[in-house]
Amino acid sequence: MTDAPMPPATGKPGLTVSPLAVDFPAMGEIAGVEIATARAGFYKHDRPDLVLFRFAEGTACAGVFTQNKVGSAPVDWCKAALAQTQGEARALIVNAGCANAFTGEAGDLAVRRVADAVGAEIGCPSDAVMMASTGVIGVVLEYGKVLNQLQGLSVALDPGKWEAAARAIMTTDTFPKGAVAEAEIGGVKVRVAGIAKGSGMIAPDMATMLGFVATDANLTPAVLHDLLVHATAETFNAVTVDGDTSTNDTLLLFATGRSGAPQVSDPHDTRLQGFRAALSSVLLSLAQALVRDGEGAQKYVKVGVTGAASASSARRIARTVCESPLVKTAIAGEDANWGRIVAAVGRAGEPIARGALSVRFGPLVAAEHGAVASGYDEAAMSAYMKNAELEIAVDVGVGDGAAVMWTCDLTHGYISINGNYRS
Amino acid sequence: MTDAPMPPATGKPGLTVSPLAVDFPAMGEIAGVEIATARAGFYKHDRPDLVLFRFAEGTACAGVFTQNKVGSAPVDWCKAALAQTQGEARALIVNAGCANAFTGEAGDLAVRRVADAVGAEIGCPSDAVMMASTGVIGVVLEYGKVLNQLQGLSVALDPGKWEAAARAIMTTDTFPKGAVAEAEIGGVKVRVAGIAKGSGMIAPDMATMLGFVATDANLTPAVLHDLLVHATAETFNAVTVDGDTSTNDTLLLFATGRSGAPQVSDPHDTRLQGFRAALSSVLLSLAQALVRDGEGAQKYVKVGVTGAASASSARRIARTVCESPLVKTAIAGEDANWGRIVAAVGRAGEPIARGALSVRFGPLVAAEHGAVASGYDEAAMSAYMKNAELEIAVDVGVGDGAAVMWTCDLTHGYISINGNYRS
Repeated sequence: MTDAPMPPATGKPGLTVSPLAVDFPAMGEIAGVEIATARAGFYKHDRPDLVLFRFAEGTACAGVFTQNKVGSAPVDWCKAALAQTQGEARALIVNAGCANAFTGEAGDLAVRRVADAVGAEIGCPSDAVMMASTGVIGVVLEYGKVLNQLQGLSVALDPGKWEAAARAIMTTDTFPKGAVAEAEIGGVKVRVAGIAKGSGMIAPDMATMLGFVATDANLTPAVLHDLLVHATAETFNAVTVDGDTSTNDTLLLFATGRSGAPQVSDPHDTRLQGFRAALSSVLLSLAQALVRDGEGAQKYVKVGVTGAASASSARRIARTVCESPLVKTAIAGEDANWGRIVAAVGRAGEPIARGALSVRFGPLVAAEHGAVASGYDEAAMSAYMKNAELEIAVDVGVGDGAAVMWTCDLTHGYISINGNYRS
Repeated sequence: MTDAPMPPATGKPGLTVSPLAVDFPAMGEIAGVEIATARAGFYKHDRPDLVLFRFAEGTACAGVFTQNKVGSAPVDWCKAALAQTQGEARALIVNAGCANAFTGEAGDLAVRRVADAVGAEIGCPSDAVMMASTGVIGVVLEYGKVLNQLQGLSVALDPGKWEAAARAIMTTDTFPKGAVAEAEIGGVKVRVAGIAKGSGMIAPDMATMLGFVATDANLTPAVLHDLLVHATAETFNAVTVDGDTSTNDTLLLFATGRSGAPQVSDPHDTRLQGFRAALSSVLLSLAQALVRDGEGAQKYVKVGVTGAASASSARRIARTVCESPLVKTAIAGEDANWGRIVAAVGRAGEPIARGALSVRFGPLVAAEHGAVASGYDEAAMSAYMKNAELEIAVDVGVGDGAAVMWTCDLTHGYISINGNYRS
């Protein structure tokens, strides 16, 4: 038995499942993708913490990575390997429980040992092995624990193990996250499936977030990279939990080409229209699931900003609102404290027309024309705030720029989870 | 009796005094400054919430205000009045319980009514009346509540009421904040005394913070402004609680000239050396007291950054560390999670030499040369983290830029206080 016994319900004992959780979808399979999980032992308690993906020959790969300047050994490895292979991959190995970040040469060496061993097991060059790690920073990966499991993982590879993989990469996640979509390219059905993990250190520009998405479409590495970068902007980069980005954020997209659909080598090819939408749908579902599982989250909040000087200005305003501890704690307290939203908007440093500013909670107007709304009804507001899913809309009255961002509230749960993460 | 009965121990019932609190100092008097407090009734519970300062004729005044673009009616008033009078003031009226921010024309009108009435009571032009408000955003100031108290306040004016004033401006503060210092100008002793209130929405560039400082030195408005701006950079702008800046932040400095010291009209006058240090000392004590009373704070943390590309780069790195929810919750949990500090440093987007990075907790080296320190001792670290006052030092290894910033931890108390602020 390589595959671990039935994993615990959450990534860490003692966590309760987020009230905003969504069910893991029926993922089906992606032709050319096989998966196995195991327990390497990076956690003291009995849970799977290691995943191996094997991809068919000729699989293209693209990645986007953390902007954090400290980075990590596995992120450095992936970037270098993708540059070396020009976007091909045959395997992906992921561990939870150790980030192997800020580990200097010893960390780099551990990554190389793992890549060499996986390459030998799969029968591919080391550079064709992608790698991702999540967990405590500053601890060198004990690569022997990974190497121990490779033979068993190789034997257990199976195309149906998406949910097991999603569970094995969880850290403080309280539910596994997956999404799937279909499209057609040249009249042939293609599928996109992905998994992700959060759930703290979630912020735009890639937070501690791992996401692995695969498709059986036949796309060149250049096309894959273009599609991934564009789809990330409005999905993974439009969610924030605490504004902390991590050293290890990694989003990888693999295309096996085994669907039978024609190859596309131009990112502007009109046959990609449906695929683009399917990819965005998968990424958005995964990104939203990260927010739904934000540490301690009790509320799922969509913040829309309109009337800004530009889309990027709208986005900076939305992000400031989404990351304001005072806004987030007010939401946790089910308090329609629109004044804090106004204050956060003012703090963003972006152009606003104070006398035209409006704030809406769902269908209820809280403020308009730069002051409290004439029909403001505190009782109705309070009732609305009891919903688990909220929508806040701000118009800043200067232009046509708009943006949407998702976040969650800031609760006692966040404090409890993060006050003793390493214990 | 105009002065309110002995105020409650904290600004809001049910709060417990911060474990980091410091005693209110023996303030003495500032020649030319008189103070009175009253209960206007902006709070339901029985507490003083209104303060009047009267200043001697010829008092110079300078102010620094919030950068928040929403701002507030009292901030707008002060800026305009100071421009009009070219830096003279005869009175200051401050209320807690209502911020009068985002209140449109009605808010502006309320401010004018109060200024007119205070001016009539004191016998000065309306423009010579400074004003500051703190409390809930979006509620127009009920100016009648202020006007009601003016006669009584006027009768009660007394130079010894600094602590009463410090208590009357508290919102969620759990202890009154004051500081005093002395210097000599031209061989004559001058005094500087000030009070401030926090305690959430505290961030650089002026957060929800009110500070009022007076001196009997004889300084022109231009000198006063120069001194204030320079002293603020390393004091009020070097503390952060939650990164949220407010609509109402106001720091005012008054100079009555009643010490008998010679007038100084050039900010570069060498006779100001001692005064400059005294002013910085008062502002730093007040700013540090804000952090000590950060909402829910259990730990007082000094973060020093060295080896940065520039002082401003060091400051941005320090601020990112100070405002990282993951760092702040780890400190609350007494967890020496230096990896989160490293991650925050990397997220700041400033130049760093990853292989030279070091992190120190007090005397204990946690990381050096880009990896965990060779002698890292978790037990010693854990013991150090139990201290109420902590020092974190980061060297990023690229240059000579240095900065210091103060912050507090992020605890359940912050969530509780801010989840039901308006109730």
